[in-house]
Amino acid sequence: MPQYKLTYFNLTALGEPIRWAFKIAGVDFEDERIEISDWAAVKKSGRFPQEQIPLLEIDGEVFTQSTAILKYLGKKFDLDVDDAILRFRLDQIFGILDDARIEFRSWFMENDPDKKQNLQQTLVNESIPRYLRQVEEIVAKTDGNFITGSKLTYGDLYVANILGMWLSLSLLQEQKLQDEFPKLATLRNAVVTIPAIKSWIAVRPKTLF
Amino acid sequence: MPQYKLTYFNLTALGEPIRWAFKIAGVDFEDERIEISDWAAVKKSGRFPQEQIPLLEIDGEVFTQSTAILKYLGKKFDLDVDDAILRFRLDQIFGILDDARIEFRSWFMENDPDKKQNLQQTLVNESIPRYLRQVEEIVAKTDGNFITGSKLTYGDLYVANILGMWLSLSLLQEQKLQDEFPKLATLRNAVVTIPAIKSWIAVRPKTLF
Repeated sequence: MPQYKLTYFNLTALGEPIRWAFKIAGVDFEDERIEISDWAAVKKSGRFPQEQIPLLEIDGEVFTQSTAILKYLGKKFDLDVDDAILRFRLDQIFGILDDARIEFRSWFMENDPDKKQNLQQTLVNESIPRYLRQVEEIVAKTDGNFITGSKLTYGDLYVANILGMWLSLSLLQEQKLQDEFPKLATLRNAVVTIPAIKSWIAVRPKTLF
Repeated sequence: MPQYKLTYFNLTALGEPIRWAFKIAGVDFEDERIEISDWAAVKKSGRFPQEQIPLLEIDGEVFTQSTAILKYLGKKFDLDVDDAILRFRLDQIFGILDDARIEFRSWFMENDPDKKQNLQQTLVNESIPRYLRQVEEIVAKTDGNFITGSKLTYGDLYVANILGMWLSLSLLQEQKLQDEFPKLATLRNAVVTIPAIKSWIAVRPKTLF
């Protein structure tokens, strides 16, 4: 069995779906966490070729780019599909949520309180609902609980985690999720009640998001 | 044979690797082009569910998100690989170039001349070289001309087109590409000399980039 070591911030965000893939596969990994306040110094250490995390080491070989890592593990751990249209829908959802991430990041990094408040209003009232409508429509193409129907994929881990993150930051309200995006509410519930995920969430470090 | 219709700006950018995939496969498609100045009005027409292009219609069914579309056609047209590590490298390169695209977009959309000049300096002198170093390192893992070695994939179309775009906008100099990123220079040359691509480039509409 290869030795896996994941290095990421002490946050859910881009690292958590990768952690979930390991949990679901029942594969041990070292879960190294770096505090945001330490990152500026740590990233210059030479350990991080692109000065970016998450970074996954497999028997010492270095893998970067969170989505690429998640998809790679998805393929290894049978959390993937081979059908061209279903794979397209997964890629399409990642594209939509990448667009969302860019806006989320602008809000998160903004230091001016007024500007941050404006960005938050746009995020909560316009952007997040628009992105979620797009993803809801794609998931609604199947009858099952997951994006591809009944088979859990890395895409479901990604979506469920982003929803959880937005909920925990009050960028999205649970009631709104239930009422306006019922397929996504069901998907999220189906993921976080998987026993391996449920027990991980109960014991994982408590973080801001 | 399905009827394909691609709608995008009258630019290369995100649409061109998709056009190249059709050309290489020898599959006809309608190449609808919208001028940037018309887009604000056209996007509200109801034809664009997410008010975004590129948009691909296949027998009237609507596909969005450029990377997802390119990967989908790559899978259909045998411009894909199944090996997990090679697929990871493709995804990793898309992740890196997505980061680059965010900076490119900030520069392209900036209207203040001083700010634009500053963003351009950073792009030319720091960001583009840094991203290209990362991609060069990945491509250097194989001996062949392409990302996965000898097999052409959608990833090569994507990389070759971005390099061409940066060259045409003078964000990258041909000599610098040759000297500092020899694998990428070879990759680009191998793609643009494919007969189907070469003859398309000779006749395609002349655009800003």
